[in-house]
Amino acid sequence: MIVIMQPGASQTQVDHVVQLVKDFGLREHVIVGTDRTVVAAIGDKRNVDKGAIENAAGVDRVVPILAPYKVASREVKRESSVIPLGSGASLGGRKVAMIAGPCSVESREQLMEVAEAVKEAGAVGLRGGAFKPRTNPYEFQGLGEKGLELLAEARERTGLAVVTEVMSIDQVDLVSRYADVLQIGTRNMHNFNLLSACGGTDKTVMPKRGWSATLDEFLLAAEYVINAGNSNVILCERGIRTHETYVRNTLPLAIIPAIKRESHLPIVIDPSQGTGHAYMVPAMCRAAVAAGADGLLIEVHGDPEHAMTDGAQSITPETFAKTMRELGAIASAVGREC
Amino acid sequence: MIVIMQPGASQTQVDHVVQLVKDFGLREHVIVGTDRTVVAAIGDKRNVDKGAIENAAGVDRVVPILAPYKVASREVKRESSVIPLGSGASLGGRKVAMIAGPCSVESREQLMEVAEAVKEAGAVGLRGGAFKPRTNPYEFQGLGEKGLELLAEARERTGLAVVTEVMSIDQVDLVSRYADVLQIGTRNMHNFNLLSACGGTDKTVMPKRGWSATLDEFLLAAEYVINAGNSNVILCERGIRTHETYVRNTLPLAIIPAIKRESHLPIVIDPSQGTGHAYMVPAMCRAAVAAGADGLLIEVHGDPEHAMTDGAQSITPETFAKTMRELGAIASAVGREC
Amino acid sequence: MIVIMQPGASQTQVDHVVQLVKDFGLREHVIVGTDRTVVAAIGDKRNVDKGAIENAAGVDRVVPILAPYKVASREVKRESSVIPLGSGASLGGRKVAMIAGPCSVESREQLMEVAEAVKEAGAVGLRGGAFKPRTNPYEFQGLGEKGLELLAEARERTGLAVVTEVMSIDQVDLVSRYADVLQIGTRNMHNFNLLSACGGTDKTVMPKRGWSATLDEFLLAAEYVINAGNSNVILCERGIRTHETYVRNTLPLAIIPAIKRESHLPIVIDPSQGTGHAYMVPAMCRAAVAAGADGLLIEVHGDPEHAMTDGAQSITPETFAKTMRELGAIASAVGREC
Amino acid sequence: MIVIMQPGASQTQVDHVVQLVKDFGLREHVIVGTDRTVVAAIGDKRNVDKGAIENAAGVDRVVPILAPYKVASREVKRESSVIPLGSGASLGGRKVAMIAGPCSVESREQLMEVAEAVKEAGAVGLRGGAFKPRTNPYEFQGLGEKGLELLAEARERTGLAVVTEVMSIDQVDLVSRYADVLQIGTRNMHNFNLLSACGGTDKTVMPKRGWSATLDEFLLAAEYVINAGNSNVILCERGIRTHETYVRNTLPLAIIPAIKRESHLPIVIDPSQGTGHAYMVPAMCRAAVAAGADGLLIEVHGDPEHAMTDGAQSITPETFAKTMRELGAIASAVGREC
Repeated sequence: MIVIMQPGASQTQVDHVVQLVKDFGLREHVIVGTDRTVVAAIGDKRNVDKGAIENAAGVDRVVPILAPYKVASREVKRESSVIPLGSGASLGGRKVAMIAGPCSVESREQLMEVAEAVKEAGAVGLRGGAFKPRTNPYEFQGLGEKGLELLAEARERTGLAVVTEVMSIDQVDLVSRYADVLQIGTRNMHNFNLLSACGGTDKTVMPKRGWSATLDEFLLAAEYVINAGNSNVILCERGIRTHETYVRNTLPLAIIPAIKRESHLPIVIDPSQGTGHAYMVPAMCRAAVAAGADGLLIEVHGDPEHAMTDGAQSITPETFAKTMRELGAIASAVGREC
Repeated sequence: MIVIMQPGASQTQVDHVVQLVKDFGLREHVIVGTDRTVVAAIGDKRNVDKGAIENAAGVDRVVPILAPYKVASREVKRESSVIPLGSGASLGGRKVAMIAGPCSVESREQLMEVAEAVKEAGAVGLRGGAFKPRTNPYEFQGLGEKGLELLAEARERTGLAVVTEVMSIDQVDLVSRYADVLQIGTRNMHNFNLLSACGGTDKTVMPKRGWSATLDEFLLAAEYVINAGNSNVILCERGIRTHETYVRNTLPLAIIPAIKRESHLPIVIDPSQGTGHAYMVPAMCRAAVAAGADGLLIEVHGDPEHAMTDGAQSITPETFAKTMRELGAIASAVGREC
Repeated sequence: MIVIMQPGASQTQVDHVVQLVKDFGLREHVIVGTDRTVVAAIGDKRNVDKGAIENAAGVDRVVPILAPYKVASREVKRESSVIPLGSGASLGGRKVAMIAGPCSVESREQLMEVAEAVKEAGAVGLRGGAFKPRTNPYEFQGLGEKGLELLAEARERTGLAVVTEVMSIDQVDLVSRYADVLQIGTRNMHNFNLLSACGGTDKTVMPKRGWSATLDEFLLAAEYVINAGNSNVILCERGIRTHETYVRNTLPLAIIPAIKRESHLPIVIDPSQGTGHAYMVPAMCRAAVAAGADGLLIEVHGDPEHAMTDGAQSITPETFAKTMRELGAIASAVGREC
Repeated sequence: MIVIMQPGASQTQVDHVVQLVKDFGLREHVIVGTDRTVVAAIGDKRNVDKGAIENAAGVDRVVPILAPYKVASREVKRESSVIPLGSGASLGGRKVAMIAGPCSVESREQLMEVAEAVKEAGAVGLRGGAFKPRTNPYEFQGLGEKGLELLAEARERTGLAVVTEVMSIDQVDLVSRYADVLQIGTRNMHNFNLLSACGGTDKTVMPKRGWSATLDEFLLAAEYVINAGNSNVILCERGIRTHETYVRNTLPLAIIPAIKRESHLPIVIDPSQGTGHAYMVPAMCRAAVAAGADGLLIEVHGDPEHAMTDGAQSITPETFAKTMRELGAIASAVGREC
């Protein structure tokens, strides 16, 4: 941590900051500049609230030096992690993993039709919500366990790994019985109890970035899971809230090189949530693979106009198949395959 | 809902949209404009995913007409709600309710000192975290039940109502045994299972607005609680994530008149989280009361430089007392009292 | 500047950074921490692009220490500046200055009616656009010089100081002949040529904060004006672009204490642009004065429903007069007057 | 325009809105819904301030139906425009146009070295700033006309088209004498006088999207240029301001399919400004081409560590050449070439 004093801070004020640094069990190092004095605090204390020093008289601001995450960082593990996806597939290696399926599991017929179509087109994972986090309490909340059973049946039929959301700690056991990957939704990325609970399972866990989470907070969500004993974590970017209105969310693909630099964990892009409009999805799939994404999470529905949820951003199986063909060439241009 | 067709949309495309509107159980009304055709869909269906129509050929976009919330709206209840706070105090009436205390309960001594000081200065509620949602798993996570016991002891001593956070559905029973008001943190505003669980208690529930939640989503969080059977809901604004860096969060006080117009529920402002810097807190307290806030939630700590959490934004009991004196005059200027 | 090295950066990499620091004419100071090495660069060089060092191998990031502005800072001038507004009024002293009037000057009748009404209610300045920056080229662009003449006539009649926008360097001379205060609109806050040109006049200059400008950039806009030879600068906050849609802009009032801490310049709040909705304006006027604003800039129109521009956010003279009465009591609660 | 009345609006209020609609020269169409009445206003009036109706009693909000831009829209011109870039090159056709070069022209040696390197690697345009918009008045402001002469000399030598920024209306003539493309910077996207002045030249004009401009505002900037008589407009996305801090700007690539849907104009992506970090640039170049960009604008510098401006985001000629090779394969995967 670096404590930057205000211009004209007195020696007494500097001395007091030095004392506070010592109170934290850190070692101080004072640098007197031309305009300002700076107090560097040396030592690894990720567990203290350094911001408190800001309150001391004469302090301008406090700049942290250490990244707040540790086990999720590339500093701790240099080589990129390859994480099991289930059904023999994995994520983070040479092959870019395609996870596709409906927003919600609506019926056996709907699910099987989509599952077979996306499998045929090259997907390795099946997404589908059984428990749906709905902002509006009046909307369809998912089929619950019945939906999970259908997902397992689809896996049986197609060999696709099942990726589905768990919304609450009391659903973790149930969802774990059916799913290969426990998805933690954007609204729950900061739900630390849920992250820890998923960290107690042997399933791969995929937290989606919160709507306005920082990169540090995103990696700290992974850190919660790993610290609870589960290293199989996949990160998923699904767009952030900004002033833009032509999209439902703004999809910041530069997070791909950023994650690759900061962390060993693989990163999946969700271009469906990440745009909110079906017509944009193929372009964003191509962009994500070109930028180095390890996988894609795509909403596909046999009849988007009548989808119970997220119809506006669901592509058809035909569009998915066409997109997959384009992705193959792009993946190969960046030394990957689809 | 209004479906706006693209310029040049064909009659077949319009007919198809009309059919989709009927599929939703709504009645259509077609308006042919100079440049575009518009299809209005008449009927109250808050439970269908109208966005799906966007996928139909020739559709430009879909504009909802009805607010997505209902029981939280002023449309349903014209007069403003006065909500019990506990210990005889209430929130939403003429008196602006001051809820103050430390970010975290750290020790008996720390808590009692602050509780007595804020009571003396005019507070009616005591805030204090027993379970702390920490972005960083290495940081102090709160005293847990021990913290709740101390809060109850402080209530006993001072007569202040206890406001404390519940982070997870498995904590609802425990926290309810000690607290007067169940606070739902910003990170959990979209945790619908938790909202519903709190809605099953007889405690007042105070959801804080999510970092990037819209006004509609904020009111829908209240709607979840009310729909679960509990009408005692207080809204709390604590700042949003923006591009600004001189604050920890941007505090949008215009939400006060907006809530007053849209909803019958009272609104509390948290100027501590809402700025992140102690030096800004008094000014934002004054602004919030002047703008019509029904209450304030303020972090006060006897020794901010050594606070275990949120020291940078905690004011001292002395600053709190001084601020309370200014607030009295402002409250009276807007026909309220503190 | 502080250069933070990546964990595991080699001695050669650190040496190279030290050389780059020297190339900038700065003095280096190397601190070896437990996890990372940090290179502090000592010396006042606001004119070099320090970011370039980020490109050197082994560098994690670069943290500036000095504020980029100087003459606008409180560091250079401790006492708050009181700036002449014209017609004998000033801004930045004990009296909170009210500047009110229509968005656009539309006609003599419209302007005189509003000018007299706001004068009567206590305003000291008259706002009104003669040149209008319209996002849409098809909309009303203002009366031009005719509008300026009407503003001068209104000043003659009422004694109000005239505040009006200058959009382009070729308008500076013309507008200076009529106006007391040259307003630089939010869209031009980064128009450095225009800032410098206004800095060459003897008129007070009021840059409005850009939609997404940082605090530093806002103060640097003032710095441009002052460096061009004109110290009479007033800052105006008019709201920022965020994800919020219930307002046209999000009005961050915490900028008031922030400016008071960082700069000696006075700050005016525009609650009309800052919300976009007339019904919110009185509450935000009260909040701004309570938070310590030195002045307000308010859109008032005799017939908002037929206003040629910004009708949605214009209040009537009656609402203005009523608001002024409330503001008097609030100003006095914070040791000011209106 | 659609006027949505509040629930319970009276017949008198609806009648008044109908009258206001007629006052605008529009035709009304009243739809009585189950909960609310809606007044549709029919007719093409892009030139009235419809927001004013929001002020009428009983009105909830006003929804515009028509896009505010016209000549920039695909509605007016179905086929995509191919715009001349200069030196025989063009932008918007099958070939993705690469425009590369230093942020600032610093010296003849620096510029020629980069120009030859990027030409060799496949660029068709040379970027380089002669007039630099610097947020900080103390920083390097560019070589001015000397810089323009060097750019022209580099064009002579390499055959690259020259793309350079014009900051102010009084520079338009001068810059037009040297440049092939007049770039309008992000800070000037709302500088309507400058847009119009560039629209009076016969040079191609390239406005960069404002930091927080909406899609509509971006297209209206193009509309200003076209309305001034110049149809040769290229749009350039360079990232927006959001809460993200691991990037200098957030680059929203979904604007590519959005522009392709709404407008006939070509779109260029600037991954240098769009990220702020050299290490992210190659990934974002690939993503932009994969998403369908018509061109890229890339900062390349022979010695980024000593660049006078934007060193942190400048890539070396070697990295540029390597990236070009990858882009060829990606372009061909999407039916284009580089």
